[in-house]
Amino acid sequence: MPRVYNFSAGPSMLPLSVLEKARDELLEYGTFGQSVMEMSHRSKEYLSIIEGCEEKLRALLGINEDYAVLFLQGGAWTQFAMLPMNLMTVRKTADFVLSGYWAKKAYTEAEKFGSANAVASSEPDSFSYIPEIDESKLDPEADYLHICFNNTIYGTEFRGIPESAAPLAADVSSMLLSRPLDTAKFGILYAGAQKNMGIAGLTVVIIRKSLIERSPEGLPSMLSYKVQHGAASMFNTPPAYAIYMMSLVLEWLESEIGGLEAMHEINREKARILYDYLDESRLFYPTARKDSRSLMNICFVTGDKSVDMLFCSEAKKRGLLNLAGHRLVGGVRASLYNAMPIEGVTALRDFMSEFEKGHI
Amino acid sequence: MPRVYNFSAGPSMLPLSVLEKARDELLEYGTFGQSVMEMSHRSKEYLSIIEGCEEKLRALLGINEDYAVLFLQGGAWTQFAMLPMNLMTVRKTADFVLSGYWAKKAYTEAEKFGSANAVASSEPDSFSYIPEIDESKLDPEADYLHICFNNTIYGTEFRGIPESAAPLAADVSSMLLSRPLDTAKFGILYAGAQKNMGIAGLTVVIIRKSLIERSPEGLPSMLSYKVQHGAASMFNTPPAYAIYMMSLVLEWLESEIGGLEAMHEINREKARILYDYLDESRLFYPTARKDSRSLMNICFVTGDKSVDMLFCSEAKKRGLLNLAGHRLVGGVRASLYNAMPIEGVTALRDFMSEFEKGHI
Repeated sequence: MPRVYNFSAGPSMLPLSVLEKARDELLEYGTFGQSVMEMSHRSKEYLSIIEGCEEKLRALLGINEDYAVLFLQGGAWTQFAMLPMNLMTVRKTADFVLSGYWAKKAYTEAEKFGSANAVASSEPDSFSYIPEIDESKLDPEADYLHICFNNTIYGTEFRGIPESAAPLAADVSSMLLSRPLDTAKFGILYAGAQKNMGIAGLTVVIIRKSLIERSPEGLPSMLSYKVQHGAASMFNTPPAYAIYMMSLVLEWLESEIGGLEAMHEINREKARILYDYLDESRLFYPTARKDSRSLMNICFVTGDKSVDMLFCSEAKKRGLLNLAGHRLVGGVRASLYNAMPIEGVTALRDFMSEFEKGHI
Repeated sequence: MPRVYNFSAGPSMLPLSVLEKARDELLEYGTFGQSVMEMSHRSKEYLSIIEGCEEKLRALLGINEDYAVLFLQGGAWTQFAMLPMNLMTVRKTADFVLSGYWAKKAYTEAEKFGSANAVASSEPDSFSYIPEIDESKLDPEADYLHICFNNTIYGTEFRGIPESAAPLAADVSSMLLSRPLDTAKFGILYAGAQKNMGIAGLTVVIIRKSLIERSPEGLPSMLSYKVQHGAASMFNTPPAYAIYMMSLVLEWLESEIGGLEAMHEINREKARILYDYLDESRLFYPTARKDSRSLMNICFVTGDKSVDMLFCSEAKKRGLLNLAGHRLVGGVRASLYNAMPIEGVTALRDFMSEFEKGHI
């Protein structure tokens, strides 16, 4: 069957050339007589893969030496707990911007470990925009200010990086590596790899080293940034193959795409194609407020749930997959992560246009 | 380069036919037009993979309906904390058998969360055997009794399943699926997949459902058995590709090997080849006491560290890899997990014999 266009919010498409390389190397990596899947994580062969992955990530994002890069497991959900357990430990209070479902999950999870304060929220308006942050409401002494940079379910994202006296903590799961990002403006960034960076089962944490000192004793060892950093992400067996896959994606970003500026340009173009169409459509309308629109997740509805569902099932027949919105909000969601080619987006737009003609 | 024999304690060899199938399906699984790596974990296509994996595991091990199977992340180290956080919550005390390094790590990690009691230990004798359990020392009211069934570093394993009034909890990382196991005799079993079951990044937990009720509120969500079970291992994105790889290994065990009895027979034969040689060798001697010898990890020394190291580096030149013992104990360790073919073991024995002739 020809390759489908997968608009899933994650796990999501991988570049074809990355999959081909993984296939070609699956039985034997280099001339080592074994698969990456089989390598001892302490072997020289494997160490060069994990170290290369970190180097490439640092180069692409311009991560400076004040920051540690950790390769962990457990997804953003594990970070929702690790963050307060490690960092909400000085004044035991942190501020949270509630811009969507996951932003709120990070907040309610943190409430288990200290005083979590909601300082801005767009929940009363169905999270349809990024709420403005009233700086006077921020606690300058808070242990951190937490945001979710891109809200996958509602299709919104921050336009700029908020200013705050407290270290900025950000869930960047659905946008990291989709564009340049000034990592030095953050205290900590974290992201699951299964959207723009690779496959499920790997979580990347970028953390200012000075913050790691806050990790208290007595935490579950696996949930301590200090323990994980002290062991250079090798405290126990890391998700070795997922790290290898990420290194292939980074290589693709660098050599085939040409870096994050070029990736951003392509991602802007992809989003423009859909938003331009949506702004003219008489059937579909986008649900996110214009000033908050995400480049990664584009959400829209017809206003009639049965038509939304019909659209998704008809699209599937054309090889346009996983367009149903998150079960909490319904509607349609097209996730345009890095590996979604422009051809996939124009195919979707063309099908929307065709569908529109039959349903107006 | 020809395929090497990898004697690593994990990650370790995978069956060649499993790797070939993974390679052949890497670009497209079935006729779905996408890689398993790209599938939405909520898609029908992927659900049939994860559900099939659980079914095959239940069939191979004979796991009954009183038990839940969880596919988690974070390795045995995460279970060292999850276990006491969830289950050492009734009388807040549990018993531990210290039979090796990891058994002791499970114990010291549990001490963070309640009263962990060492009821037997072979530490004074360098963990060279499985200590006998004096039943009068066991607390029948303990929340559980914890053992590490196979001690990877010292090459020892339990001969039978200990009897205890308290539910039995076991780290079975390096032996699960290497032989039949009466899972109904345990309260909880856990294992990283990267030894006998697949690749790193996946942890399998088999737990009696009635024990899950002990999970207290307020735990980090990801570390709650109740939360993970309630969501059928889909509380967040699971390590989807690692689960797929495990399902391929289970298929191999079932259809190519013929089940766990047959696997056990092969594993016994592989271990016999090495132990028989070691018992006659005038250069190498095994370090584990005879009544505690592991089928999975066979540890031996020459008595001269420099000769041990020379042996490992000469063996590497013959394609016999990762034979160095754990850094804590040195010496030589040959891990003979399921995917190590008999030919690998005879090649190792033949090289040992050749090396012995040159160093006696």
